[in-house]
Amino acid sequence: MGRVYLVGAGPGDPELLTLKAHRLLKEAPVVLHDRLVDERVLGLVRGERVDVGKEEGEGDKQEAIHALLLRYAQAYPLVVRLKGGDPFVFGRGGEELGFLLAHGIPCEVVPGVTSALASGVPLTHRGLAHGFAVVSGVLEGGGYPDLAPFAQAPTLLILMGAKRRAWIARELIRLGRNPLELCLFVERATTPKERRVRATLGAVAKGQVVVHPPALFLVGKVVEAFEPLVQTLKTLEVAG
Amino acid sequence: MGRVYLVGAGPGDPELLTLKAHRLLKEAPVVLHDRLVDERVLGLVRGERVDVGKEEGEGDKQEAIHALLLRYAQAYPLVVRLKGGDPFVFGRGGEELGFLLAHGIPCEVVPGVTSALASGVPLTHRGLAHGFAVVSGVLEGGGYPDLAPFAQAPTLLILMGAKRRAWIARELIRLGRNPLELCLFVERATTPKERRVRATLGAVAKGQVVVHPPALFLVGKVVEAFEPLVQTLKTLEVAG
Repeated sequence: MGRVYLVGAGPGDPELLTLKAHRLLKEAPVVLHDRLVDERVLGLVRGERVDVGKEEGEGDKQEAIHALLLRYAQAYPLVVRLKGGDPFVFGRGGEELGFLLAHGIPCEVVPGVTSALASGVPLTHRGLAHGFAVVSGVLEGGGYPDLAPFAQAPTLLILMGAKRRAWIARELIRLGRNPLELCLFVERATTPKERRVRATLGAVAKGQVVVHPPALFLVGKVVEAFEPLVQTLKTLEVAG
Repeated sequence: MGRVYLVGAGPGDPELLTLKAHRLLKEAPVVLHDRLVDERVLGLVRGERVDVGKEEGEGDKQEAIHALLLRYAQAYPLVVRLKGGDPFVFGRGGEELGFLLAHGIPCEVVPGVTSALASGVPLTHRGLAHGFAVVSGVLEGGGYPDLAPFAQAPTLLILMGAKRRAWIARELIRLGRNPLELCLFVERATTPKERRVRATLGAVAKGQVVVHPPALFLVGKVVEAFEPLVQTLKTLEVAG
């Protein structure tokens, strides 16, 4: 019976892989990965690559993934299950962990740099935000999440929320956030195709803001305070 | 003028450093680091090591750190500012970034595995938690945080909250959480000295639970669902 590693691939940039993830990708005879894992990261895999990717909100495939994991764990001494970002932040890592342990398969979780931290904007800052919340824009199976427990957080990050951005913005305004508050979308953060879009929550609510998923959706005073600095950094990077 | 990298050191385990952090630690002629960075990580530094660590909640030293960063950036081509976890989650990375850019120093931020993900327990799980919140137990300067915007999150993680755990638990109960809800402390997560303590929020509120800081303080249904699995994993690790 093989050992299964649930591994976080980080936000995209291969240099943001952990040393442990990097080692396991090279050692593993097989890597089962999500669709959103960056192609440059997948290029490091030396063994077999199995795409078990599912579309945003598509929940039905999870059982098929469990069955595949079990089959590979029975066939190989070491199996890597590679997930974008961190396996325990909307990665359904908990479900896979529970399933594998229930079948007596030894597992290990390797945390990764979560996409939630890949916007380039600090999530906390003195006087602006002493904490933050992270919520998914899509429930497993496709449902709409209850945003009320998160709506008052000084910094709010919505993952998998780009498609439903107008609904989310309307909900946040209904729950008390200011329509004039700035928010930020970061498409394909940390990759060469990164694109950043700033807008007011009100404009997003009205469907006036074009965003191409997948994208981070960040709301809070840190956007107004730091996005201009991030732009300066990008300029310096190009210059340097 | 040197380039300053604000680098996340991850939660402790050196294998959870990113490839980029690992490379920069070896290349940098000088590394300014916090007190909480793991000794095994600091052992990778080949250049000069400068401890600019401050105690939990001690805010006064930040200006001195800024002055040091400036001096080293003027003296060296490459400076690493190393922070436990991720530089943008309570790392005051935003303040240092703003200060350096205001002085014309080129900077780059290298995200790390945040300590918030180092508990071993999934922060989200189908049917239990479709999001989470992270808050600091201590404001810059030592003040007590307003927990109200975070108290309803299905999963709540308090960083730097171990010392004030009784106050925090009382606040969360006052704000509506169930005193019978299980919570979890993880001292020195991902290090060989890791120690895990489970208790009800009510017992913590009454000062009945012994915890040695630094420790993660995790509240939510995911604790009850997953902490037994984490214990099973630990057993398997020892066996394997």
